[in-house]
Amino acid sequence: MSVPAFELDLHLALEPLGSGSFGAELVPGWVVGGGINGGLLLALAGKAAGAVLDGKANPIAVSAHYVSPAAPGPAVVTARVRREGRSLGTVAVDVEQEGQLRLTALVTAGSLAPGEEAERVTAVPPDLPPTEKCVPASMGPPELLEIVPMLGRFDLLLHPDHVGWATGAPSGRGLLSAWYRLVDGREPDPVSLLQVVDALPPVTFDIGIPGWAPTLELTAHVRAAPAPGWLRVTHTTRYLAGGMFEEDCEVWDSADRLVAQSRQLARRPRG
Amino acid sequence: MSVPAFELDLHLALEPLGSGSFGAELVPGWVVGGGINGGLLLALAGKAAGAVLDGKANPIAVSAHYVSPAAPGPAVVTARVRREGRSLGTVAVDVEQEGQLRLTALVTAGSLAPGEEAERVTAVPPDLPPTEKCVPASMGPPELLEIVPMLGRFDLLLHPDHVGWATGAPSGRGLLSAWYRLVDGREPDPVSLLQVVDALPPVTFDIGIPGWAPTLELTAHVRAAPAPGWLRVTHTTRYLAGGMFEEDCEVWDSADRLVAQSRQLARRPRG
Repeated sequence: MSVPAFELDLHLALEPLGSGSFGAELVPGWVVGGGINGGLLLALAGKAAGAVLDGKANPIAVSAHYVSPAAPGPAVVTARVRREGRSLGTVAVDVEQEGQLRLTALVTAGSLAPGEEAERVTAVPPDLPPTEKCVPASMGPPELLEIVPMLGRFDLLLHPDHVGWATGAPSGRGLLSAWYRLVDGREPDPVSLLQVVDALPPVTFDIGIPGWAPTLELTAHVRAAPAPGWLRVTHTTRYLAGGMFEEDCEVWDSADRLVAQSRQLARRPRG
Repeated sequence: MSVPAFELDLHLALEPLGSGSFGAELVPGWVVGGGINGGLLLALAGKAAGAVLDGKANPIAVSAHYVSPAAPGPAVVTARVRREGRSLGTVAVDVEQEGQLRLTALVTAGSLAPGEEAERVTAVPPDLPPTEKCVPASMGPPELLEIVPMLGRFDLLLHPDHVGWATGAPSGRGLLSAWYRLVDGREPDPVSLLQVVDALPPVTFDIGIPGWAPTLELTAHVRAAPAPGWLRVTHTTRYLAGGMFEEDCEVWDSADRLVAQSRQLARRPRG
């Protein structure tokens, strides 16, 4: 096996163990707060699904239920085909560590063309200032950076109006948006988009609630193969009640196409 | 076993077959277009998950991948606990007919209180005219009613501004909203909300595309136990491209609380 040219591909490497099982190594570089980033695990599940289907390498709908935090170290990814048709296949994927289930997911995958002309759209891409006018997450408070080594994996340039939380003045709107690009220039693809949908800080930062927000469930829809270049990402929430909130994410590519949408249900951080 | 007082409970009856398997009977009354309503199947999956967990009867996050259309007749529902903690459990549920997989789902369930005061909300309930000023779906075009026996199961009163599609004048906004109540007065609960999120006509009706829209994936989040009475339901879409669209649903209860949210990825109807 050749060594991948880009670090994300190295971090998502799957070693075939037979019968749809794969070995993976979760590196400390993807830690965020108490565990490995949920988006990285989602990408791992999406990639494993594609590996057990015939010519359907692109995740289209991925639903993951996060049952325990993943830690750096080895993991076993098991992908079981539930149905395979001509154009789509559905696969059940588990990520386990030392026999403990971390994540169980369902993945429907197929082939995806680069986004064709959208037929009808009222969604609009986020209105982000140019990259040089945005605020790199790497300039965040040191106590944040220390617990989020993941921020070394990608450039995240936040909208200057959405970083008030860093200086004690959150906007209160429940909105974050940012430019995103992997640090070593690896271009986005349908698998990497699954990481992107869980890359920003929790949207609860913008409503004055600090702390990490454990994900119960996250479903991502990959709507088209992304064009090369920077991605624009938004997180929004509209309802926080009973200790839970939804976080909606959109990812737009450099050709102004909505390439991924996701929603997660997360627990309110203790603050 | 006593006979349920309400028809939905009869239609969701699960006969234990041992080892987490249950027998169910899908009745013709839930047919919509080419098969059994996806919301009814979702409710069946949610109920089966609660039945194999200890004191966690309320579905909270349900992700279903629809792999083939279900037909009226017997079905086998298999629920397999993947992890059970103190407050939450995660269950994998399959619905099969004659050995063919119809739906595979992941259900995270627990106990749910009636909605407490929301902590922070920008979502607003749909602005529906009083029920008597809305348009019963039962007054729809006969060619529609004929292929949707499901409309005999609940009262669906559509916003008068969102029924232009019935007379060839869709609004084009991608928005449908309606009042919903089960015909025999059965009050809503967390399981029945899983039917409600897939009860309205496809939102594509409102953008001038007739025909049924097969669901690939639907995830519902039940946010609180609903108060008794009428529910208000909205469907929206913001992006139709590459032959797919997302349909977002919100369900609000009589106490003005957002009790369920869902998103489905569906294929564009052929029109």
